[in-house]
Amino acid sequence: MNQRLAFTIHAVDGAARTGVIQLSRGEVRTPAFMPVGTAATVKAMKPADVRAAGADIILGNTYHLMLRPGAERVARLGGLHGFMGWDRPILTDSGGYQVMSLADLTKRSEEGVSFKSHLDGTRHLLTPERSTEIQRLLGSDIVMAFDELVPATADRDVRAAAMERSMRWARRSRAAFEAGGDHASRSAQFGIQQGALDPDLRLASAQALIEIGFEGYAVGGLAVGEGQEAMFGVLDYAPGQLPTDRPRYLMGVGKPDDIVGAVERGIDMFDCVLPTRSGRTGQAFTRDGPINLRNARFAEDRAPLDPSCGCPVCATWERAYLHHLVRAGEILGAMLMTEHNICFYQQLMADLRAAIGRGEIYAWAAQFRARYHPGRRATDAH
Amino acid sequence: MNQRLAFTIHAVDGAARTGVIQLSRGEVRTPAFMPVGTAATVKAMKPADVRAAGADIILGNTYHLMLRPGAERVARLGGLHGFMGWDRPILTDSGGYQVMSLADLTKRSEEGVSFKSHLDGTRHLLTPERSTEIQRLLGSDIVMAFDELVPATADRDVRAAAMERSMRWARRSRAAFEAGGDHASRSAQFGIQQGALDPDLRLASAQALIEIGFEGYAVGGLAVGEGQEAMFGVLDYAPGQLPTDRPRYLMGVGKPDDIVGAVERGIDMFDCVLPTRSGRTGQAFTRDGPINLRNARFAEDRAPLDPSCGCPVCATWERAYLHHLVRAGEILGAMLMTEHNICFYQQLMADLRAAIGRGEIYAWAAQFRARYHPGRRATDAH
Repeated sequence: MNQRLAFTIHAVDGAARTGVIQLSRGEVRTPAFMPVGTAATVKAMKPADVRAAGADIILGNTYHLMLRPGAERVARLGGLHGFMGWDRPILTDSGGYQVMSLADLTKRSEEGVSFKSHLDGTRHLLTPERSTEIQRLLGSDIVMAFDELVPATADRDVRAAAMERSMRWARRSRAAFEAGGDHASRSAQFGIQQGALDPDLRLASAQALIEIGFEGYAVGGLAVGEGQEAMFGVLDYAPGQLPTDRPRYLMGVGKPDDIVGAVERGIDMFDCVLPTRSGRTGQAFTRDGPINLRNARFAEDRAPLDPSCGCPVCATWERAYLHHLVRAGEILGAMLMTEHNICFYQQLMADLRAAIGRGEIYAWAAQFRARYHPGRRATDAH
Repeated sequence: MNQRLAFTIHAVDGAARTGVIQLSRGEVRTPAFMPVGTAATVKAMKPADVRAAGADIILGNTYHLMLRPGAERVARLGGLHGFMGWDRPILTDSGGYQVMSLADLTKRSEEGVSFKSHLDGTRHLLTPERSTEIQRLLGSDIVMAFDELVPATADRDVRAAAMERSMRWARRSRAAFEAGGDHASRSAQFGIQQGALDPDLRLASAQALIEIGFEGYAVGGLAVGEGQEAMFGVLDYAPGQLPTDRPRYLMGVGKPDDIVGAVERGIDMFDCVLPTRSGRTGQAFTRDGPINLRNARFAEDRAPLDPSCGCPVCATWERAYLHHLVRAGEILGAMLMTEHNICFYQQLMADLRAAIGRGEIYAWAAQFRARYHPGRRATDAH
């Protein structure tokens, strides 16, 4: 029994499961969606409203926080939780994904990745050891191993080499975590399975991670443009390669229909910028699919954003008002749209947990899909 | 006794007074500060937080709302209160100030002001009758008369002519208001004293307004660049020219020290964009004066924005966090800074009311001024 993280599965329905992850800062009901708090804020929301929406855990970004305000500064200020006013669990990513997608002039080596900050051009080095140290300085509750990403379209030998390096980096990340003293006794660390769309690479990666031993396991390298069908193709087997009794986290996913399909396939945790980012561009999620409030057809629409939603935004304001705020570029528009979207995602997770508990996940998912039209305005997951 | 608006004065201390204005949608404790909700939103705040800060009434802008979303549209959607989710009193300005400061190609005549929208270039005409109709369509609780502004530096005959035209427009505004049927029975209308910095013009204006008869009276044409000393010079006599038993509203004021001085001189109501606008540019008000959170000296400052403040922002977050949010351009920074500033202004009004109630307004104001340093970063009132 691992006391850093206890995972209790309450019900299993096919490959899907529902349960509770116990961490030192609180419980996480699974399947769980983690709102993204990139720069020490879930954009345009107060922490109390994030909690009221039903979120048990949020995600913080190592890459953004190491550059501004800086990990050592956050540590001097008492850690990320107190800094941003969120006292429940925080999962931090390793910075691996962002450094390769946002930074300039990245140079990869066996040691790690050196890069120039996209903010001020200063040069930095991110290694498994430094990534793990930053996450400790932030006070993360779930630390992610530092890994290397390559496009799913890269050559087979490139895909294999990146997976193998990621496994060496996972071992170094684990050693750095275990050397973290008091922090290591109060937090957990997840390894990240790589291997692109190759079942054999995915299996080798899973076996390497299990040999190292983590409190949980992420499925990495998906939601990077391969499409839902290819992603579900991997999820048809990848979760089964990971330990049944440990949480499984699908990184960077996703659209509501992505999440439903991934839960059906055995995923327990998700994160994505989509609900927050969409909220700032006028897109609201509804049971019938996303709608964009900039559209003139909402100018005198007196319905709430989603007539079947019970969130504080839908209880108070009409689409016509949100249309006005979005058109006028008002900050309150971003605030209310974001809050609705986060509530929508949390309600989706609550519905999924309840359906699994009743042993009806597949019927529930079929009903969800029959009504939900993904739409063309939903942007990609990342 | 005018049933549209009842004004009960609870205590008088020199020229200062404290009391309650009763309107059909609720009570307004005076002296009162009205947060500005330009485009049907107090920028970056939810209505519930505006109320929790202590605001009894907010201000809406006729000019902005007539252009977007349009007064007839707001009326079809049930009025401004329901549209924006604020069920307490709303005072609407007449559009006179904004049309002359924001619109393009304005043409003034005895009929009114024609102008091109700064949003889409469409041509509009604002008259005393149309301004009053728009305020009725919005469902305003306190309707302002339509007036004409000229710079205090204009020639004497220009200043006199503008005041005299404003009084003719006040009479037309009053007739339009009285013809408003049911709305006129549930709302009040204020006349606006003009006359620049001329005591005799101010007196003539006051007498003209009193002859027409309004539920309250505003002191207009100040806080437009004349400086605090000149403004206080007018306030040394102008409130005394207006009825003692009716609310006196100083439009567009102001900085905290402006408000304190105006309350000492007999003003009951204020509005200003300063706390909300400052909140979006990183400026926080404190008992010691304004501070700008962009400043590097706050990067690791663990104090709240104002150590003597009891607002939700000061109870939760440190200056170091606000500094980070402001530097990173995060929406949450604008949200929290605005909320603190609105709470600061409302607490200032509560302190002023209490000091008047104790008969200590002049001692309290002297203590306030001894501590409060206006600072160079505080922008002008408008």
